[in-house]
Amino acid sequence: MPRQDEGWLEHRITRIDDAEDARLSPYRNVRERDLVGREGRFIAEGKVVLNVLLANAAFAVESLLVLENRLAGLAAQIALCPLDVPVYCVSRAIMDAIAGFPMHRGILAVGRRSAPRSAGQLIGALPSASLVVVLCGISNHDNMGSIFRNAAAFEADCILMDETSCDPLYRKAIRVSVGAALKVPFAREGSIDDLVSILQQAKFDIYALSPSGMESLYTAQPGSRTALLLGTEGEGLPKALMQTLKTVRIPMSEAFDSLNVATASGIALSRFSRFSGI
Amino acid sequence: MPRQDEGWLEHRITRIDDAEDARLSPYRNVRERDLVGREGRFIAEGKVVLNVLLANAAFAVESLLVLENRLAGLAAQIALCPLDVPVYCVSRAIMDAIAGFPMHRGILAVGRRSAPRSAGQLIGALPSASLVVVLCGISNHDNMGSIFRNAAAFEADCILMDETSCDPLYRKAIRVSVGAALKVPFAREGSIDDLVSILQQAKFDIYALSPSGMESLYTAQPGSRTALLLGTEGEGLPKALMQTLKTVRIPMSEAFDSLNVATASGIALSRFSRFSGI
Repeated sequence: MPRQDEGWLEHRITRIDDAEDARLSPYRNVRERDLVGREGRFIAEGKVVLNVLLANAAFAVESLLVLENRLAGLAAQIALCPLDVPVYCVSRAIMDAIAGFPMHRGILAVGRRSAPRSAGQLIGALPSASLVVVLCGISNHDNMGSIFRNAAAFEADCILMDETSCDPLYRKAIRVSVGAALKVPFAREGSIDDLVSILQQAKFDIYALSPSGMESLYTAQPGSRTALLLGTEGEGLPKALMQTLKTVRIPMSEAFDSLNVATASGIALSRFSRFSGI
Repeated sequence: MPRQDEGWLEHRITRIDDAEDARLSPYRNVRERDLVGREGRFIAEGKVVLNVLLANAAFAVESLLVLENRLAGLAAQIALCPLDVPVYCVSRAIMDAIAGFPMHRGILAVGRRSAPRSAGQLIGALPSASLVVVLCGISNHDNMGSIFRNAAAFEADCILMDETSCDPLYRKAIRVSVGAALKVPFAREGSIDDLVSILQQAKFDIYALSPSGMESLYTAQPGSRTALLLGTEGEGLPKALMQTLKTVRIPMSEAFDSLNVATASGIALSRFSRFSGI
């Protein structure tokens, strides 16, 4: 029963005093390179995100990096980590030297995604009542993270995105999502037309959100299988695609017709989720 | 008719080739110091924000700083500027040296706010049907900017905030607001209790937004004068205050009960604004 032994934490960790130690290389300069060529690996930061990571079997933890003066407060997370996962412990000076900038979070993890499922597999596994988010060309990691956070809050079943959208497992996207990028299943592949086609075959009611949408969000009556399609703030969704879909707008001021795409996703998901009836 | 003269733009601007020129000092290191001790002055960035600034009589423009290779595309904004406002024009190298970081926007302005109105004055001037946003302890400039953007999109009449909230005229807040911080009237003063008291005297229906709110956003029936009260994501609103007010929640997942405060403001404003009936 190691957790009842006061020394278990000290035995569990590996102290490292050299910023050049090769075991720390996955954590080096995380802001700049973000694990380029990373083979399904990603960086998770902070206690809340780590809790989500540890709770999701679709992801494995390869190692932890903990700031020595935060060790006690992170004992619960460390205890949840499989015993074969190394837990490196460093001083503030080493942490900042490795990260390349003042790292406020007391804990980092290198995670690894198991084989991702395809859009077709994700959609095929959904129940008859389901809510899906579809993204086209969302290239900003803050927006991506916020959309995942909103999708988790309103229990969207999954998120599909085209290949021009950015990676939700980018460090900053995970952080902004408060871990939702490690919680909401997603697929990132192909063109938006391909994704729409998969949803149409699965009898989804697809609503494209657009400032020029035909129907108000507050009068739209989505069916039991609903997909909400979001494009970039600048260019929006491809016109040819819009013409083949139902379009919905968030009614707002004509004098300031502008919402951030992540905020718009929150408004639309709140209204389309089962929670709006509660 | 200077605008029909092709040379008007060249005559209108003042070229500066020395990054140390004293006329550029208000623009120096804008990211770090943000005009500390600035006497009502602020920095506005980019064409969209500048358009809002030029359209609002409550603000004056003291000078413009334009990147030379963007000059032609910004001719309309420069033409709208009073003739006694200097328009400084610099190269990319000088711009980056002054700003202290690579400055992507092609235009900056130093603006100045005329004497701000008090919360009492703002509320006293509102019509019988009105929507007010009230902020307590919002200290993150991104969130502040996003809340202003949402307030403008849903035509909130004004924003009141306590003195622990951050300044909406901070450079980044203005930028994130897409200019709404220069559009939506606001007052920043005193305690949240003082602000609530002003609203109660003016017969406002005050709804405090909270994850533990008594009523669902989708069943609440706000009156013609509605105030939406938002607190920080962490600590939320003071408990003693909450007990004296109506509280409203955005219904969402119990497994991921977390929305960014700016997103929450967008969802609640969309629902409480006159636009939800359109």
